[in-house]
Amino acid sequence: MNPTVPSSTATPDEPRPPLADAAALSVNALSERLVARLVDDAPRFGAAISRTANGTVLVDAGVAAPGSVAAGVLIARICMGGLGHVTVRESLDARPLWPSTIEVRTSWPVLACLASQYAGWSLAATKEQTGGKKFFSLGSGPARALAVKEPLFAELGYRDRHERGVLVLEVDRLPPQFIIDKVVHDCGLAPERLTVVTTPTQSVAGTVQVVARVVEVALHKTHVLGVALDEVVEAGGSAPLPPPAPDGVQAMGRTNDAILYGGRVHLTVKHDAVARRLAAELPASTSRDHGRPFADIFTSFNFDFYQIDPALFAPAEVWVSSLESGATYHGGAVDADLLHGQWSGKP
Amino acid sequence: MNPTVPSSTATPDEPRPPLADAAALSVNALSERLVARLVDDAPRFGAAISRTANGTVLVDAGVAAPGSVAAGVLIARICMGGLGHVTVRESLDARPLWPSTIEVRTSWPVLACLASQYAGWSLAATKEQTGGKKFFSLGSGPARALAVKEPLFAELGYRDRHERGVLVLEVDRLPPQFIIDKVVHDCGLAPERLTVVTTPTQSVAGTVQVVARVVEVALHKTHVLGVALDEVVEAGGSAPLPPPAPDGVQAMGRTNDAILYGGRVHLTVKHDAVARRLAAELPASTSRDHGRPFADIFTSFNFDFYQIDPALFAPAEVWVSSLESGATYHGGAVDADLLHGQWSGKP
Amino acid sequence: MNPTVPSSTATPDEPRPPLADAAALSVNALSERLVARLVDDAPRFGAAISRTANGTVLVDAGVAAPGSVAAGVLIARICMGGLGHVTVRESLDARPLWPSTIEVRTSWPVLACLASQYAGWSLAATKEQTGGKKFFSLGSGPARALAVKEPLFAELGYRDRHERGVLVLEVDRLPPQFIIDKVVHDCGLAPERLTVVTTPTQSVAGTVQVVARVVEVALHKTHVLGVALDEVVEAGGSAPLPPPAPDGVQAMGRTNDAILYGGRVHLTVKHDAVARRLAAELPASTSRDHGRPFADIFTSFNFDFYQIDPALFAPAEVWVSSLESGATYHGGAVDADLLHGQWSGKP
Repeated sequence: MNPTVPSSTATPDEPRPPLADAAALSVNALSERLVARLVDDAPRFGAAISRTANGTVLVDAGVAAPGSVAAGVLIARICMGGLGHVTVRESLDARPLWPSTIEVRTSWPVLACLASQYAGWSLAATKEQTGGKKFFSLGSGPARALAVKEPLFAELGYRDRHERGVLVLEVDRLPPQFIIDKVVHDCGLAPERLTVVTTPTQSVAGTVQVVARVVEVALHKTHVLGVALDEVVEAGGSAPLPPPAPDGVQAMGRTNDAILYGGRVHLTVKHDAVARRLAAELPASTSRDHGRPFADIFTSFNFDFYQIDPALFAPAEVWVSSLESGATYHGGAVDADLLHGQWSGKP
Repeated sequence: MNPTVPSSTATPDEPRPPLADAAALSVNALSERLVARLVDDAPRFGAAISRTANGTVLVDAGVAAPGSVAAGVLIARICMGGLGHVTVRESLDARPLWPSTIEVRTSWPVLACLASQYAGWSLAATKEQTGGKKFFSLGSGPARALAVKEPLFAELGYRDRHERGVLVLEVDRLPPQFIIDKVVHDCGLAPERLTVVTTPTQSVAGTVQVVARVVEVALHKTHVLGVALDEVVEAGGSAPLPPPAPDGVQAMGRTNDAILYGGRVHLTVKHDAVARRLAAELPASTSRDHGRPFADIFTSFNFDFYQIDPALFAPAEVWVSSLESGATYHGGAVDADLLHGQWSGKP
Repeated sequence: MNPTVPSSTATPDEPRPPLADAAALSVNALSERLVARLVDDAPRFGAAISRTANGTVLVDAGVAAPGSVAAGVLIARICMGGLGHVTVRESLDARPLWPSTIEVRTSWPVLACLASQYAGWSLAATKEQTGGKKFFSLGSGPARALAVKEPLFAELGYRDRHERGVLVLEVDRLPPQFIIDKVVHDCGLAPERLTVVTTPTQSVAGTVQVVARVVEVALHKTHVLGVALDEVVEAGGSAPLPPPAPDGVQAMGRTNDAILYGGRVHLTVKHDAVARRLAAELPASTSRDHGRPFADIFTSFNFDFYQIDPALFAPAEVWVSSLESGATYHGGAVDADLLHGQWSGKP
């Protein structure tokens, strides 16, 4: 007997979607209190609040407002639908990998990371639609689960219903009205009940909330590998927190490097074969592109994202525990030299 | 002058019980808010709530419901009467002992660990009494201090009085009505004001709440050694968090191994001689049975708990600070090889 | 473009004070909830509450009352005006520097550390004024920003206005009425709306709240070095937590040693030249007096504080990240041998 493997596995002929047990949980409701804190205490988070004519709340956390690490942590918790712990840790280690580290934990890895935190909602507007510059962003956070515009949601078997919603955009300007209207419509919200948080990649808060995706990246690759998502029952991880880089490609590069070369994830899965496989196949080192800084890889492919091996997007090191056997498998390794080579200044 | 040694030591001829200063603190009141969170937000903790005909609240955190690490952390905090910090940490270390670790801290070690968290209330029912299978569990948590059925309470000089109570059972089924009636009666509670939380040893939540006993185990051995309990004024500790094992003996073995071979505790005591003594005598390595996995030891004694040397039940490594001298003494060591030998899967 | 360097740097001819953007934040308001917790839950923090005839609330956290580590953590958070995270961490490291560590983080380093936490308000009373022993203490915490008696506040460009205030005194007796009257007057508070917290250097809570100044010490030296304070936008740090020492000079010595030889700070600043300079000049090792335990240094100067090289007061190790370049510079190192030589007892 192993009572920790949920009983849903008892009916293998009739597969239930991975989030069948999550219907009682609303990621928008669970993050509502966090959003209220960000909005109400905006000055202490270095954020600036504005409202559209229709009342939609716009949080600037690094566009014109400075933002902060504290804002980034709160936004990461919002992204995880209130179901994740996100903290910044200062190193206590005798020989630290890096002085500051983001630590993430969740007992709802698929719900928090894939149904909410994953940046999967493609939001685009042409010049004509914006009345100015064209706009593109991949929306992340709880409102995705209200709109359920991505095929992923059918697979997850999850749809949120709540009268308020929050969306996070990793982009360097506030979204145009056209995009806000689309989000309001697709989510079925009253305009004044939507909050949109904007954190540029090159901002402090943006760096935090991207590096805090270390567990989400592991879940996403688990999905890419074709592993059934209801396998993953617990997850935690950490990744070093660099400052943002002033150059756009370098900024994107270093948040990726933080995860690909500095990220560590510990997953707990149901079955031993899955644990064994993930330990072998999940680490970023399984990718043909692994070994060089992300900005170099991206540049070498002429900035064409789709040329990059998808297997690269994964934590450097994984530990995977199996409830079936009780064994924990280990794979990959962090690469402190690569990180310090990229991030450390010469005195 | 050392103002940090409380004045109670000034009258050695008239010894006060160790918890004489704790009369204003109710472990059931201090944990009430945590119990409400576990019950009200049960779905997010993977817990299931039911009520007996009399209204007693039963929390299933790993029997039929899956439970979770988050549930285990909350239950550990409940066990400590709301007076302990319990967190799961992801490793940031270059060469981690283990990827996930339970961290515990309390400024009320004797009250939180011995008067509340310790699993000391023997609750047994025969087949006749249950109307089914016989039942046995050692109750832990705040309700023990309402019932004060254990001689320990007279020694501690503590009795809680509160109109609500909570008890935690490490057992693989919900308690029978006979046991609930006994607890209600002994605690002097209205039936609907008692909450009983059940976490099996082989569940995720159960593993967490047992490993979170790392400081309690140190306090218990301090007591076994005959050290006056009012010596211990502060405590913290950590222990690696493995997944549960599917086999019953192995499951019990690994939570014990987490503490005996992976646990670290830092105590602050009043007097130098006590600190020196505890550093020497507290670590598990002082036991004749130390050095083998707990499941092997238990098996070698034909599953007879009482054959095991009581000195074995202790953290692997201790640091003991003395307020009298300001010195900190160190003893024992963690055994990473033994833990990895037991817990790591072969790829 | 680097959107993370706030736009205020765009007008270098018209320098704004470092806390020009903090006008909306009241350190006394932000810490009010924490003060209420300390007062309302005093028994669980080992603190004792009394009130003067005029209603001023006095919190004894280590004079006659025992205090606790938990009290020290809460007082450190109060000192930082509610804008800092302060936690005690238990070591998870295979070879820990020290078993327990204070970890501090803030997204408002100048406001939290210099405008609030810094012990800069000189409060003295003669025998005649106290009607007993003469009194001296350097007041720290939010109320300093109500009184703004220090020239530092003009430089910071910050003044708090709030109808309640809290002051922290690191001294071994409760303050005399003369001092309380002065604080009430200078802060412009009704007497019953002032709370004064007292933590002796030689108490557990006092040790915690002093070691929790590891980031503040770095900010203070940054100021001493003449670096513009608006450079520093984020900060975190850690320092080992020893028990207090029974001897007064030793007690002061070990909290200093915790920072000078065990402290680590990670600052994020705006400009690369500043980051590079701070990494080189900030560590305590740049001081001519560095290398010996603080108590020895202090004794060698016949207990004359002003003979000690001010450059000594700094963390052992610093990491400084630059938003301008994205580079992180490193300087100094912790000295585990010195700390263990001072703090470890011989078995």
